[in-house]
Amino acid sequence: MAAPAAPRHVVVLAGGKGTRFWPVGRERRPKQLLALDGDDPRPLLRATVDRVAPLCAGGAPWVIAGRAIERDVRRLLPDVPRRRLVFEPAGRNTAAALGLAAHAVQDEDPDAVVAVVPSDHHVAPLRRYRDTLRACLDRAAVSDRIVTIGIRPTEPATGYGYLALGPRLATTKAGPVHRVARFVEKPSAAKAARFLAGRRHLWNAGTFVFRPAVLLAALARRQPEVAARLTRAAEGGLAGPALDRAYAGMPSISIDHGVMEKERGTEVLAATLDWDDLGSWDAVARHARADRDGNVLDRAAVAVGSRRCFVRSDGTPVALVGLDDVVVVRTPDALLVARRGGGERVRDVVDALRRAGRDRVL
Amino acid sequence: MAAPAAPRHVVVLAGGKGTRFWPVGRERRPKQLLALDGDDPRPLLRATVDRVAPLCAGGAPWVIAGRAIERDVRRLLPDVPRRRLVFEPAGRNTAAALGLAAHAVQDEDPDAVVAVVPSDHHVAPLRRYRDTLRACLDRAAVSDRIVTIGIRPTEPATGYGYLALGPRLATTKAGPVHRVARFVEKPSAAKAARFLAGRRHLWNAGTFVFRPAVLLAALARRQPEVAARLTRAAEGGLAGPALDRAYAGMPSISIDHGVMEKERGTEVLAATLDWDDLGSWDAVARHARADRDGNVLDRAAVAVGSRRCFVRSDGTPVALVGLDDVVVVRTPDALLVARRGGGERVRDVVDALRRAGRDRVL
Repeated sequence: MAAPAAPRHVVVLAGGKGTRFWPVGRERRPKQLLALDGDDPRPLLRATVDRVAPLCAGGAPWVIAGRAIERDVRRLLPDVPRRRLVFEPAGRNTAAALGLAAHAVQDEDPDAVVAVVPSDHHVAPLRRYRDTLRACLDRAAVSDRIVTIGIRPTEPATGYGYLALGPRLATTKAGPVHRVARFVEKPSAAKAARFLAGRRHLWNAGTFVFRPAVLLAALARRQPEVAARLTRAAEGGLAGPALDRAYAGMPSISIDHGVMEKERGTEVLAATLDWDDLGSWDAVARHARADRDGNVLDRAAVAVGSRRCFVRSDGTPVALVGLDDVVVVRTPDALLVARRGGGERVRDVVDALRRAGRDRVL
Repeated sequence: MAAPAAPRHVVVLAGGKGTRFWPVGRERRPKQLLALDGDDPRPLLRATVDRVAPLCAGGAPWVIAGRAIERDVRRLLPDVPRRRLVFEPAGRNTAAALGLAAHAVQDEDPDAVVAVVPSDHHVAPLRRYRDTLRACLDRAAVSDRIVTIGIRPTEPATGYGYLALGPRLATTKAGPVHRVARFVEKPSAAKAARFLAGRRHLWNAGTFVFRPAVLLAALARRQPEVAARLTRAAEGGLAGPALDRAYAGMPSISIDHGVMEKERGTEVLAATLDWDDLGSWDAVARHARADRDGNVLDRAAVAVGSRRCFVRSDGTPVALVGLDDVVVVRTPDALLVARRGGGERVRDVVDALRRAGRDRVL
């Protein structure tokens, strides 16, 4: 198979929220603006842009973010051309965002093939990741299907979606391409254990690769209102009042639930990568370097008789005494102390603080 | 027995350290300067002075403190006459401090009877405490013995000294007075359980009541060097170079170990009081009002799925998630997170911070 001529584009989705990373993450400081990946000092969005830029036509990816963080994004990404920064008037989940991505790239480059990647995931090693993304782009250019990245499970995780493998369709140097038999939502522990043992399910890494026309056709079939609203927005240049009007009543639905679970013929590249979605402080702790007691401490912390603790401080000295499995996150204006493994409940705390009238720190 | 005519004096010992209350307590901010007693907003020393002032001849107690906190003490106690504030050049434990107290009061009032009380204890109810102290003073005025306060144990505590009861000598409206059969240092758990069951041992509440001449005679018998040095300091007016010289080589020994354990004829008033020595954050948590989950939270804290936690913040919002039995103490420049019940180990953290070169926050 000859290398396809389609120009490769990457769109970084930067629409996440910061709730689960309180108190470092805030309503106006979502997680993609935070440095959460191990020792990497870069905000996740900056690291993602750097990761994909070398394989992008024009040397830079596209970014889709919320208008609420427009200034932060521009400041963080001075090297990304302004027309490649697209700001949604409001978050309307991933179906709308992927459709917007497809329109934006198609308007600039009708021959493009596009990879839409999250801005808030851990992925390594770098070179193999780029090879994987290139292989997906090249496959989508010839198959005219939506291609996803699947990760071989290493544990019976219940926090990710899964892809059931269908027949093998092709082989690439980054791994085999299979038909997707089925998209599976976050499973129960028992189901996750069966998936791990059966070796016919991969983690859904949240990456979607396609020719714009292919994605837009699927969207028109499965989410016609989303598709129609985006078409009208595209006629108005994907900005200004036309975009505002399109988003005002835009259905909020995920691409997985709204499109992928319903589509037939979707493909998955079974990749060999270290991957995690960095969805909570627990996940951040997993990817950071621990000392011999299993503690992940920043330079300002000391621990006595403590194990498997995680400390992120604002530079202020933090002392732990006699604790196991505790997460401590200190900012100048707030403090979280949580049981490790209870990452999801950080959202409950944010709700409790709102009820207590402490919106200033949210 | 007629009420004795001896004028009642109270001396507050304010020589404690702050190590176990890090990070609120500091080398230059010892615990008697901190508000640690339940909801009482007053520093412990201020609360102690207020507690005893009504029964003092002249309307104010004496205070013995270290010269390092002289300015803080003067600022905190503007209503205590300057000549009743006595500053030690250095901490030399309680034998020297009690001797100094005896000299100071005797110089002003040769007929005095003196109660020396700690500045860092929880004691309640207030009226019964004052009655108890008056009864001790009146007893010491007629018995010419050193009289202590003993507290009926309510649990097999291993953190306090105990007094073994001898024969009953008298009855007061605050409780019976017994001969002390023996002073017992902090016991093992097994011994403490036997003391509790046997009902012949009381907690040693660290209060000593005496005529100055009686205490000074005991000191001369049991700690002749301490006594001799204080006599020379008294000839120099208990201040300035004479006091410096006396303290430069002063033996550092506690009144319990150096005198009381060796003396015969000591007396104890068996009191009925709520009492604790507020020796650690754990003790502070015990005396504060808990919510229905057993949490002691300040106004800035919220807790989700947490029980028996203690939070003291600098006003900054603190959120707890999924924790049991954790102590959190936040100041603007430091943070402690500790297992409740591990109060003693806070000192280890202070050592670790010193080794890490973080003396600025000690």
